Amino acid sequence: MVRQSVRQLARQKSTIIRRKIYSPKKEKEIETSKGEEAVRFATLGGLEEVGRNMMFFEYEDEIIVLDAGLQFPEEATPGIDYIIPNVAYLEERKNKVKAIIITHGHYDHIGAIPYIMDKLGNPPLFTAAITKEIILRRQEDFSKAPKINFEVVKAGDIRQLSKNFKAEFFGVTHNIPDGVGVILETPVGKMVHGGEFKFDYDNEGNPKNLDVWEKIGKQKIHTLLLDSTGAEEPGYSVSERVVEQELEKLFKKATGRIILGTFASLLDRLAEIIKIAERLNKKVAISGLSMKTNIQIARNLGFMKIKKDVIIPLEDIRKYHDDKLLILCTGAQGEPQASLMKIANGEHRYIQIKKGDTLILSSSIVPGNERSVQILKDDLSRQGALVYHYKMIDIHSSGHAPQEELKTVMKLIRPKFFIPIHGYYFMRWRNAQHAQEALGLKQEETILIDNGQVVSFTKDSVKPTDENIPAYYIMVDGLGVGDVGEVVLRDRRVLAQEGMVVVIATLDRHSGKFLKNPDIISRGFIYLKENKEFVEELRKRIRNLISRIPRHQQLETDYIKSLMRDQIGQFLYNKTKRRPMILPVIIEV
Amino acid sequence: MVRQSVRQLARQKSTIIRRKIYSPKKEKEIETSKGEEAVRFATLGGLEEVGRNMMFFEYEDEIIVLDAGLQFPEEATPGIDYIIPNVAYLEERKNKVKAIIITHGHYDHIGAIPYIMDKLGNPPLFTAAITKEIILRRQEDFSKAPKINFEVVKAGDIRQLSKNFKAEFFGVTHNIPDGVGVILETPVGKMVHGGEFKFDYDNEGNPKNLDVWEKIGKQKIHTLLLDSTGAEEPGYSVSERVVEQELEKLFKKATGRIILGTFASLLDRLAEIIKIAERLNKKVAISGLSMKTNIQIARNLGFMKIKKDVIIPLEDIRKYHDDKLLILCTGAQGEPQASLMKIANGEHRYIQIKKGDTLILSSSIVPGNERSVQILKDDLSRQGALVYHYKMIDIHSSGHAPQEELKTVMKLIRPKFFIPIHGYYFMRWRNAQHAQEALGLKQEETILIDNGQVVSFTKDSVKPTDENIPAYYIMVDGLGVGDVGEVVLRDRRVLAQEGMVVVIATLDRHSGKFLKNPDIISRGFIYLKENKEFVEELRKRIRNLISRIPRHQQLETDYIKSLMRDQIGQFLYNKTKRRPMILPVIIEV
Repeated sequence: MVRQSVRQLARQKSTIIRRKIYSPKKEKEIETSKGEEAVRFATLGGLEEVGRNMMFFEYEDEIIVLDAGLQFPEEATPGIDYIIPNVAYLEERKNKVKAIIITHGHYDHIGAIPYIMDKLGNPPLFTAAITKEIILRRQEDFSKAPKINFEVVKAGDIRQLSKNFKAEFFGVTHNIPDGVGVILETPVGKMVHGGEFKFDYDNEGNPKNLDVWEKIGKQKIHTLLLDSTGAEEPGYSVSERVVEQELEKLFKKATGRIILGTFASLLDRLAEIIKIAERLNKKVAISGLSMKTNIQIARNLGFMKIKKDVIIPLEDIRKYHDDKLLILCTGAQGEPQASLMKIANGEHRYIQIKKGDTLILSSSIVPGNERSVQILKDDLSRQGALVYHYKMIDIHSSGHAPQEELKTVMKLIRPKFFIPIHGYYFMRWRNAQHAQEALGLKQEETILIDNGQVVSFTKDSVKPTDENIPAYYIMVDGLGVGDVGEVVLRDRRVLAQEGMVVVIATLDRHSGKFLKNPDIISRGFIYLKENKEFVEELRKRIRNLISRIPRHQQLETDYIKSLMRDQIGQFLYNKTKRRPMILPVIIEV
Repeated sequence: MVRQSVRQLARQKSTIIRRKIYSPKKEKEIETSKGEEAVRFATLGGLEEVGRNMMFFEYEDEIIVLDAGLQFPEEATPGIDYIIPNVAYLEERKNKVKAIIITHGHYDHIGAIPYIMDKLGNPPLFTAAITKEIILRRQEDFSKAPKINFEVVKAGDIRQLSKNFKAEFFGVTHNIPDGVGVILETPVGKMVHGGEFKFDYDNEGNPKNLDVWEKIGKQKIHTLLLDSTGAEEPGYSVSERVVEQELEKLFKKATGRIILGTFASLLDRLAEIIKIAERLNKKVAISGLSMKTNIQIARNLGFMKIKKDVIIPLEDIRKYHDDKLLILCTGAQGEPQASLMKIANGEHRYIQIKKGDTLILSSSIVPGNERSVQILKDDLSRQGALVYHYKMIDIHSSGHAPQEELKTVMKLIRPKFFIPIHGYYFMRWRNAQHAQEALGLKQEETILIDNGQVVSFTKDSVKPTDENIPAYYIMVDGLGVGDVGEVVLRDRRVLAQEGMVVVIATLDRHSGKFLKNPDIISRGFIYLKENKEFVEELRKRIRNLISRIPRHQQLETDYIKSLMRDQIGQFLYNKTKRRPMILPVIIEV
């Protein structure tokens, strides 16, 4: 391991990760004068992160919204459940919102729906069948959310969304079925949102369904908006056919039980895995509610065809020989509440690891989960399982098109302008580079914008403006939506790093004298019970401090508090080189 | 993005990552009866983590220690500066400790030295020249640490360490110069510790210096102990020659300034980079104290030969044309205090990013730093720099041998037994598999042990015993070493997630009546100033709660406190679905 400065790195974890919001450049003034037709476009999330995807198109008195996702908490937002887009701008214009389109059923595209639909005036929601079912299932947890007016669409459908907007839906391959992209016909031209996609390959390794993109390219496309999540990755996707072959090989090699962990939403792969099990005459048991639910939805809608008696209840696994068993489970990211972690911890009701188990982690590691997955692998292999993961064999493939697939799509669609969406700035910058390379576009024709920054589309131009609409984080924590703000988070971060000390001085209102010894409570600082002497010294300091204050200032509580904060803080720092949060309390009786 | 259950994943970040310590299996009883000669071996760290490397060999009244590293804090240890090995076992036997050997100058091998040397009785420290200088530089920060008795060794040196132990040092290629491995001759046989290494390749891509390992193989080696950090990685290292060629290409392509961020300890690469700059007639400025210091050490010892006038002071960069400038800096991991982050934030005294700058991150991402590095790339590219990193081009190579290099070394050394060291269980498990494959060893001849687990070496056997010596974390936080324990950390984690509420009830000692309205202080929970009504309701609850307590129980403070904790906690949970830490205080006057 190579390391730099100890203190630097130690501090790194503790420091708030700052997100600089640059104001858009002045020269990019709005060029559309009032008379000229212009479609306005902005994202409310998804451009400085992976997640919280939401954007809209606006023309005169009509607004079309695309996706409403959530973002998972970060190091800088401890304790938060998740972050949703700020829809203040849309809420003020809710009677203009004519439709919302949802591209697919992942939480970073549907997760905010229960929170924002009534703020948007509950417009019709256009989406594909399986996405509808996933949204409905989630609505069950939100009894107060309004009933959604679904408009179920399928690939090839064309729908007039409003007076000025028409949508044509096309199917894309992602790792959840029924994902769509959309050609949005606007008064100034056709905009394509590619959904989230990757290429599907046949057994010879040739990409399938390129004709979908080709057909779009035959329409004159104004602007292409394309997912940038994979834009840093070179080359092409690992074919799901290869993944299946490798999995089948592992299945055949296994002499005992096979336990396979993956994402509950990877329905295409789950379908294929169950087919392999059928071929190899294995029974399939499922552990994990979300996976069970998703498979049920997919079966109900005919996306998965599973032979009778293949799926068995988890409690029946003891009835079968080990080599006849495939157990599918959630938790391949090391999520503490999910099946695989319970199995690893020996806390699962039906499954205990035994020597000879083959354990397959058919997923990549979502950044931030490295340590949890490491622990998972450690614990499982320690108990005798043969663990396989994607670094060892091609048993996972990302759902996001890498560079060469992105470029192929760009070349097939040949838009006049390109806006990279979904992903951190650098990912989008790379995607813009790809577009310049693949299409010969000029830099100013590949537009990098910020969340909330309004873009103006005319027939022949795409101009980022310097108008910014609110797009800051709305945080969801327990029942509270938006009530946890920067102050609360800052406090949480400080508390996490150095703990806190409450110092209570109980004084006589009249004499200003101590009525009792100062009370000291601390948490996360040092263990006071083992540091009695230290506590006594601290008490003495507090008594001295207050007794030195001239009589006429003794009732200026704020002054005394600030004095206590400073001097007690300095004393503790000198003694320990730590800076706990100091909370002085003056009780006057 | 594919996500599973929102709540599950949200919680994941917040949950303590549990480390299961399995007790060693009963059947592995100590087999060496008292009469038989046996060398005892154990590690005090490094086996369940990457870092905190320390181990020792013991025979009769002699102990030889190897390395004394630190470990960087984890999610589960918030606010901690770092973790060092527990040396309680050695401290009790300090007069037996005859020598400590340090393999190389990285902090995970030297970082604990200032804390433990006096506990070990300050034995002679055997290490190579540059490692000595790095250790000395660090000692400057620890005025109370004892003066170290260095025994400087170089590759090929053989030293009698004590009556029973002799060491032969051999040079290894790592990414810091002067790294060594050691053949430790013990009364039961020769043990080889491979240090940390990777292969060095010539311009044709052939590995260099394999003769070193070959020569070792000619001695009869009892047990080989080998770094497992790279054991999950397939294939061979990217050759540093390739890295240099790619960097030279980028340097030639750059039309403006080149700013290159890397680890300050990557001295071999820094030397090569400066050579390229010399060839291309560029001046080199260095930003970052640790890098400056290391380069100075390397120059002083003759490891770096740099022409006069090539290195210029940072403040002079304005005097040179942009295309004549190479700026080396620290902070390629996004460390908040390091140069590169200051540059990205526009806070650097001498360097502001301008369009046309080429920015090269010549390092991989240490797990856990993904988000920081993402922000770095985002901010730098947003300001107009052309950013290159290791995923785009081969401009970094790890210092740890991957699979095929590990296997090659195993085959050259042909030990009777193999103990994988350095790394998580799964990495070591993989390394053991490699040894079984490469050497045809049986599973029980490739020994997986835990930190603190004592291993018994006899002439013909290596047996893990069920004796465990203390090897738990010693945490360093500010001035405190070992005073932050599990209680304090648990509190920090809770505080970080949900914040806390202090509830102060000031009561009359005699009547038990409230002398004033309850005081409520909260941090990291909700912002009380904006929730006045809520606070009033809470106050009312507290008054009611206490007034309902029968008179005879009113002085049982603990009982009242526990009642307050429960009931206030439940009230807050019902209202908010959050569980802040409740700290009830009863002040009786």
